[in-house]
Amino acid sequence: MRPSGRAADALRAIHLEPGFSKHAEGSCLARFGDTHVLCTASVEEKVPPFLRNSGKGWVTAEYGMLPRSTHTRTDREAARGKQSGRTQEIQRLIGRSLRAVVDMAALGERQIKIDCDVLQADGGTRTAAVTGSWVALAIACRGLVAAGRIPATPIRAGVAAVSCGIYKGTPVLDLDYLEDSAAETDANFVMTDNGRIVEVQGTAEGAPFDESELLELLRLARHGIGELSLHQQRALEAA
Amino acid sequence: MRPSGRAADALRAIHLEPGFSKHAEGSCLARFGDTHVLCTASVEEKVPPFLRNSGKGWVTAEYGMLPRSTHTRTDREAARGKQSGRTQEIQRLIGRSLRAVVDMAALGERQIKIDCDVLQADGGTRTAAVTGSWVALAIACRGLVAAGRIPATPIRAGVAAVSCGIYKGTPVLDLDYLEDSAAETDANFVMTDNGRIVEVQGTAEGAPFDESELLELLRLARHGIGELSLHQQRALEAA
Amino acid sequence: MRPSGRAADALRAIHLEPGFSKHAEGSCLARFGDTHVLCTASVEEKVPPFLRNSGKGWVTAEYGMLPRSTHTRTDREAARGKQSGRTQEIQRLIGRSLRAVVDMAALGERQIKIDCDVLQADGGTRTAAVTGSWVALAIACRGLVAAGRIPATPIRAGVAAVSCGIYKGTPVLDLDYLEDSAAETDANFVMTDNGRIVEVQGTAEGAPFDESELLELLRLARHGIGELSLHQQRALEAA
Amino acid sequence: MRPSGRAADALRAIHLEPGFSKHAEGSCLARFGDTHVLCTASVEEKVPPFLRNSGKGWVTAEYGMLPRSTHTRTDREAARGKQSGRTQEIQRLIGRSLRAVVDMAALGERQIKIDCDVLQADGGTRTAAVTGSWVALAIACRGLVAAGRIPATPIRAGVAAVSCGIYKGTPVLDLDYLEDSAAETDANFVMTDNGRIVEVQGTAEGAPFDESELLELLRLARHGIGELSLHQQRALEAA
Amino acid sequence: MRPSGRAADALRAIHLEPGFSKHAEGSCLARFGDTHVLCTASVEEKVPPFLRNSGKGWVTAEYGMLPRSTHTRTDREAARGKQSGRTQEIQRLIGRSLRAVVDMAALGERQIKIDCDVLQADGGTRTAAVTGSWVALAIACRGLVAAGRIPATPIRAGVAAVSCGIYKGTPVLDLDYLEDSAAETDANFVMTDNGRIVEVQGTAEGAPFDESELLELLRLARHGIGELSLHQQRALEAA
Amino acid sequence: MRPSGRAADALRAIHLEPGFSKHAEGSCLARFGDTHVLCTASVEEKVPPFLRNSGKGWVTAEYGMLPRSTHTRTDREAARGKQSGRTQEIQRLIGRSLRAVVDMAALGERQIKIDCDVLQADGGTRTAAVTGSWVALAIACRGLVAAGRIPATPIRAGVAAVSCGIYKGTPVLDLDYLEDSAAETDANFVMTDNGRIVEVQGTAEGAPFDESELLELLRLARHGIGELSLHQQRALEAA
Repeated sequence: MRPSGRAADALRAIHLEPGFSKHAEGSCLARFGDTHVLCTASVEEKVPPFLRNSGKGWVTAEYGMLPRSTHTRTDREAARGKQSGRTQEIQRLIGRSLRAVVDMAALGERQIKIDCDVLQADGGTRTAAVTGSWVALAIACRGLVAAGRIPATPIRAGVAAVSCGIYKGTPVLDLDYLEDSAAETDANFVMTDNGRIVEVQGTAEGAPFDESELLELLRLARHGIGELSLHQQRALEAA
Repeated sequence: MRPSGRAADALRAIHLEPGFSKHAEGSCLARFGDTHVLCTASVEEKVPPFLRNSGKGWVTAEYGMLPRSTHTRTDREAARGKQSGRTQEIQRLIGRSLRAVVDMAALGERQIKIDCDVLQADGGTRTAAVTGSWVALAIACRGLVAAGRIPATPIRAGVAAVSCGIYKGTPVLDLDYLEDSAAETDANFVMTDNGRIVEVQGTAEGAPFDESELLELLRLARHGIGELSLHQQRALEAA
Repeated sequence: MRPSGRAADALRAIHLEPGFSKHAEGSCLARFGDTHVLCTASVEEKVPPFLRNSGKGWVTAEYGMLPRSTHTRTDREAARGKQSGRTQEIQRLIGRSLRAVVDMAALGERQIKIDCDVLQADGGTRTAAVTGSWVALAIACRGLVAAGRIPATPIRAGVAAVSCGIYKGTPVLDLDYLEDSAAETDANFVMTDNGRIVEVQGTAEGAPFDESELLELLRLARHGIGELSLHQQRALEAA
Repeated sequence: MRPSGRAADALRAIHLEPGFSKHAEGSCLARFGDTHVLCTASVEEKVPPFLRNSGKGWVTAEYGMLPRSTHTRTDREAARGKQSGRTQEIQRLIGRSLRAVVDMAALGERQIKIDCDVLQADGGTRTAAVTGSWVALAIACRGLVAAGRIPATPIRAGVAAVSCGIYKGTPVLDLDYLEDSAAETDANFVMTDNGRIVEVQGTAEGAPFDESELLELLRLARHGIGELSLHQQRALEAA
Repeated sequence: MRPSGRAADALRAIHLEPGFSKHAEGSCLARFGDTHVLCTASVEEKVPPFLRNSGKGWVTAEYGMLPRSTHTRTDREAARGKQSGRTQEIQRLIGRSLRAVVDMAALGERQIKIDCDVLQADGGTRTAAVTGSWVALAIACRGLVAAGRIPATPIRAGVAAVSCGIYKGTPVLDLDYLEDSAAETDANFVMTDNGRIVEVQGTAEGAPFDESELLELLRLARHGIGELSLHQQRALEAA
Repeated sequence: MRPSGRAADALRAIHLEPGFSKHAEGSCLARFGDTHVLCTASVEEKVPPFLRNSGKGWVTAEYGMLPRSTHTRTDREAARGKQSGRTQEIQRLIGRSLRAVVDMAALGERQIKIDCDVLQADGGTRTAAVTGSWVALAIACRGLVAAGRIPATPIRAGVAAVSCGIYKGTPVLDLDYLEDSAAETDANFVMTDNGRIVEVQGTAEGAPFDESELLELLRLARHGIGELSLHQQRALEAA
């Protein structure tokens, strides 16, 4: 029995609210239950040095948590003067996940910077961030098309992410904080809207796991990401 | 004529939404028009070294802007590895303003940390931050009383803040970004709910100003802060 | 009765010694009683990026305290690896104050960097810094004229600063450390030599204050700044 | 055909040289072909704050590359003043992998710090680091037993790591730099000596991959890790 | 012929002004010609961790240059966020030089922190710093004796420093900036008042030098340090 | 009697192993007994800003210690976020020593970066670093000649370094850690292969020393450096 009473393969209540931010070229407030992540996409007509004069664009991401997004207050990274290893790991994951579905030549020599800021955390912030960021990115690209700056969207596929884990011996989908902190195995999956894998990260928190367990988690993830893709499409249409 | 069509002594639409954050001991989303600041209060049973064994508490504040809260994206301070002078100036102001109305002996040897994070900026973020923080702080103190940890609230008065400025020759209240970036003189006032001054900061952006102009700004501020105090009371009752 | 025996409206002994530094284009050792601040002006033929090709110049300031300028030793900011919020607040104030009286187009596309280093501190270092910096700046500008690099000085007015405060219930001028650490209200005024306000910063250290108190402090400041302006003129003539 | 001429399921020449370092409580130079990583284990009788008085120990890891371990020189992280996101990601992985097989209560309240320094890089530095670190850790634990500080080794299983990838359409084991920089899919596996999974990280560098490809990589990894475990046992016996 | 017209073995005009700083337990403004270094000694009743409960004291030093002490402005180290290698090298030299003549057990478990701040630079700042610091240190120790905190001064000997160099083929004493920047060989000597060597650092700026040249420089230094010791004694008596 | 049983004028076992690193343009593993330093030379077709368009090249050095190269683990400088004063002092010494024997115009407008990383420390790491770096540098320069990028080597002389010290009253050559930590006087000499001095640094660790002792150390150093030069020549021939 999950603490939230959800079925093993049930996502939390998902809300993807596009246009949350007035200034950004694209934005989405992604809510996975009590986990709330504000994702914005900022278009800049300038690429990193290694791409200058290449004709290609770039997508990159930054991630942060508000100090009191967490159960007890976490130190502000700006005040400490550096980003934690966890923060860097997550923002690298978000950037890789989005770049996997963008045609950089079609984007042209410009950069889209994604910011994912966690307003409230209850487990699964990185998967909410990937999922919401894709919506923000897609809105920003649509804006570039509408403005005549590129002929068609450079986005080749949808991409979303979800966590799975083995909680009290049972594989479950989309862990909340209570489950996450007690899970024996924890895995994050990033997949395209046609069910192919972009990234998989599985970690044994307790005892090591075996192939069959990995496959069960993968199947749960595929199911969850199918639903998240529909949410993304609806959010994009509503934007 | 103000860009927003407001009268010279009119505030923007003010919304103080208490309880925005699930985890914090007190919270308030302060919206002054399109300026949105999330204020949280975190209670810690530990004071800074200079107060240990003094029996007295402390209130301190931190401030940050989400990178895309601004019209064009601002670098993330956590990524740059340091907080700007402006950030430090603002968080020092917020802390001083709140401490001016708190009885530190009545708070007892504990610290309340205020976090003000700007979700969206359109001028006047520091005054929205002070105003919303007072609500978050008051909720947190009420919680301490309810939990029997202190007999009565240590807050001696309300405190709120507003900006005023001389825009195209006319003194106006609560500047938005368009006005702020064009004002000849810019002043921020922090006042108690009974109209006394906690802090005044006036700066000539263009030509220096004189005493009579300062007094006109002060009167506008007193008017605006009167209204803000009512909003604060209502928010606190609704919490 | 003030600890120093001064009248309420009396400045400390003021000495502005121009040319203290052999290498700087302009310099002034500003002594307000036991507060000694070395101010230098360095001319650089290069402006910050946001002014390139604008034809306009810039004036900026940095501030620091020698570690043992204070009663007990303060950590060296260079060793700690960052400047405190107080330092940044003060250097921003000095820069703004000087820029308020400089015609940037007349200065031409060059930058003047002001350094204010506190050799000894006894209260009021920021006001001594503003007052001495104006002298250093004026000498540097005179040098630019003498060298034929600009036709006339770009300085449109004098500017000086002084602190006032309410000490044991009485408004007093130019607080020394003993008064400063006990004052109920503390205010810094930056004014031009014709009595107009460039910046006012007033803070309630104890109980909040009211309009009439602010006005009394302002009148004291105007009186003090009148005297400081005469000292500045004499220093400039002597240079 | 692989650039090195190896079969798809062949590891590079593996050498695990124990006792490379004179001072460390345990050490191993791990060479996977031209990738050389020096791993040391340092025992400290002090645990991180969150474990004080818990009776439990800790294992943590740091990772670094010598500036000219790479094809072209990489900036020294100590000179840049911070560790890259990649460095932090890798050292977190090494620490997690080792902790998965250590009984922290049996280790007792002490910490073992692992340092993995890449002397020469040719792909797969993180997997060589995990594999060599386990040897260094095991030697250090054996030393604790020999010194009578703990009754038996706290290590519950062997752990090793290897990379796999899809190179020109073919799944291959233990990628060198040439393969790594051209692979469509890249995965790192950390497994115990009895074939269970501690960590899996798979990333689509080109097109997303599917479940069957993930399983092929997993089987290659299980084969490689079986061989690496034998190398580890031999190194430990030789130490 | 030296640019200053001095004889080869002549020091610049030396002024050691004790008591320059009102707050420090000991202070001395050391002027070697146009090189002016303010040296202060601060007594703290706390030693670094490695000396706690040892009964022994410590002497350490920090060094800094005001940004416009130099011919052209140097960036402020506090603003850059780190001290240069040159700064660290110099402050380590000053600390070692002073510690060489202090009996740490006689000082007792307290620390004396020396701050050397260059107000104006014209070559030889480190040697002026060592020479002036000894005076500041001696005054501070005398104060400890006067206050009954230690029975006798822990200073066992005088110590001073001077630079020598080979300028246009001739060994000369106490180089100023013009000589320093053109010297073929540059050496700094720290010696006791009885002519023994505490530290020697000689560097070939142009062609390498030989033993006889080193000895000539050493003899010049011994002569100069003899004179500096007399200046130190006089300053100490005057304090 | 030395702890190692060596004669007073005997070096430790010296091994200079060229070509230790596969990627670097020049490399040498320098072993002075149990002190092992990996030295690499990296050629970059780019000079520091102050040399652009000068036609001249540059040689610079960086130094680091692996955390467990020392008897007890030393914190990783990359993790602490800054290089210690000792590290900076040593890398500045290595750079100066090598530049003293390189004709920068003959090198042409390119930079050679030397990295010295201590794999194992047992005293004298800086002298092993200078000695090994010269070999790495010479190999890199020979490569530039072989590639036709410069007509002849820009290296004008050999350079090597050795430490000497007074240990239990006796001057000895090439101190190991046991001697180094107990020596009364410690000196490092950098000399050319024809016996001229590039740098001398002598420090009294205990009582100050006199001229005759300095000369004895210098004679020991000349002897040791003569031998080291032969090792360097053999290593260069073997490369």
